[in-house]
Amino acid sequence: MPNKKSVKKHRPQILIVNDDGITSRGIKILIEVASQFGDVHVVAPDKPQSGMGHAITVHAGITVSPFHYEGTKSAYSCTGTPADCVKIAIYHLLKEKPDLCLSGINHGSNASLNVIYSGTMSAALEGSLEGIPSAGISFCNNHVDADMKASAKTARTIIEMMLSNKTDENLCLDVNIPDIPIEKVRGIKFCRQAKGNWHESYEPHKDKEGNEFLWLSGEFENLEKSKKDTDLWALDNGYVSIVPINADMTAYNELDKIKGWKTIWK
Amino acid sequence: MPNKKSVKKHRPQILIVNDDGITSRGIKILIEVASQFGDVHVVAPDKPQSGMGHAITVHAGITVSPFHYEGTKSAYSCTGTPADCVKIAIYHLLKEKPDLCLSGINHGSNASLNVIYSGTMSAALEGSLEGIPSAGISFCNNHVDADMKASAKTARTIIEMMLSNKTDENLCLDVNIPDIPIEKVRGIKFCRQAKGNWHESYEPHKDKEGNEFLWLSGEFENLEKSKKDTDLWALDNGYVSIVPINADMTAYNELDKIKGWKTIWK
Repeated sequence: MPNKKSVKKHRPQILIVNDDGITSRGIKILIEVASQFGDVHVVAPDKPQSGMGHAITVHAGITVSPFHYEGTKSAYSCTGTPADCVKIAIYHLLKEKPDLCLSGINHGSNASLNVIYSGTMSAALEGSLEGIPSAGISFCNNHVDADMKASAKTARTIIEMMLSNKTDENLCLDVNIPDIPIEKVRGIKFCRQAKGNWHESYEPHKDKEGNEFLWLSGEFENLEKSKKDTDLWALDNGYVSIVPINADMTAYNELDKIKGWKTIWK
Repeated sequence: MPNKKSVKKHRPQILIVNDDGITSRGIKILIEVASQFGDVHVVAPDKPQSGMGHAITVHAGITVSPFHYEGTKSAYSCTGTPADCVKIAIYHLLKEKPDLCLSGINHGSNASLNVIYSGTMSAALEGSLEGIPSAGISFCNNHVDADMKASAKTARTIIEMMLSNKTDENLCLDVNIPDIPIEKVRGIKFCRQAKGNWHESYEPHKDKEGNEFLWLSGEFENLEKSKKDTDLWALDNGYVSIVPINADMTAYNELDKIKGWKTIWK
């Protein structure tokens, strides 16, 4: 239920975006939940954009088209990437800066290393860079007909927490929901990203003309299995994981080491 | 000149990738410099991929074609993204893990916030995630006919430093070269990413059929102008900037704050 104080003062303006495309099941659930808390504005890609990372469109034009979504204040489909959608919402479509930016609900995990490949998280990060507290919400299940009750409850919880607690304007949350029935979810955990890695393989296929193409598949490895303060530990143990992220990728421990290098500039 | 010790032991295997495409001027310079230090293997996109962030191809096949590059051990053009190129090199094309992965030389800055949007840096980061010391090298000038003498010297310096100093296998350097004549470059500085922001605008245009499309342009703002330990300060003051980066985007300061939140899971 919406926080009474914030409803009285000002109906929160909530920007919703995703990377699975404007017609995906996850975004519909997020819109339904968010519209109980505020005015919902949707700007989402017109097609699936999974794995787009933080791509933006710099060598092409972008088209935006009005889209009908019941119960929303405004909705647009966009030919650009998830990050483009947020930029276009802020700089072109919306009259005022939203109070929240929510991305998802993504079909598939964005925990650990997956943040860097994730269109969902790039949209949330883009929102936070524009000074809007943001969250990307992802369900660790790729199947289109999976039970998303725990995902809906998580979305409600995240919105309620973000509206009722003091948040920095650059806050960006990476929220992941374990693939277990809602009654088994033990609660939420604030954590850090686990170190992980993808072991990839490329399977060769042939098209009708006999030309070879390669298809990516991979297996993920948790490199910090014993560490209890990580998102992967939380998910493996029945918790919703919440990791605050930011755009500073400086490796401070490496910085200390390479400062000792002999520098050669001759 | 190559480090004698490393040449004697084993000729370094150097993987070269970029985001401006396999025929760009920057990659040619990097190949020329790197081939003085080791065996060069090129896997690069068949078209420009600027602004691709850490995108990977998950919904399509990827095609790889042999490409002729004088003086290289092997070269391939690839229909995928910069990050795809590195994955395909490691998991499909190369027989042994390279000793170095170099991405660039990019035409345009990848300092500060630009790392998250950069195909160049995603390729370098991907290399480091595979346990290969890596560097993305970028020249703060977009013009195709710019004077790249300082860029070539920087590439030489970076390779020499990485081969002669002890490097962690996950080391990833974000190297940027200021847009000044080579004789004015004061040396190199190890730094952290400056906080910055893009202020965007979308200009509406019409195609021949009268349909509107939007074109992105933006102005960059350094949010830490007075801080002397940042890459933007180094570049503004005539230094090549070197920032070690990693894939951990956890915002540890925010984590401490949100741990104090009242959590609601009812």
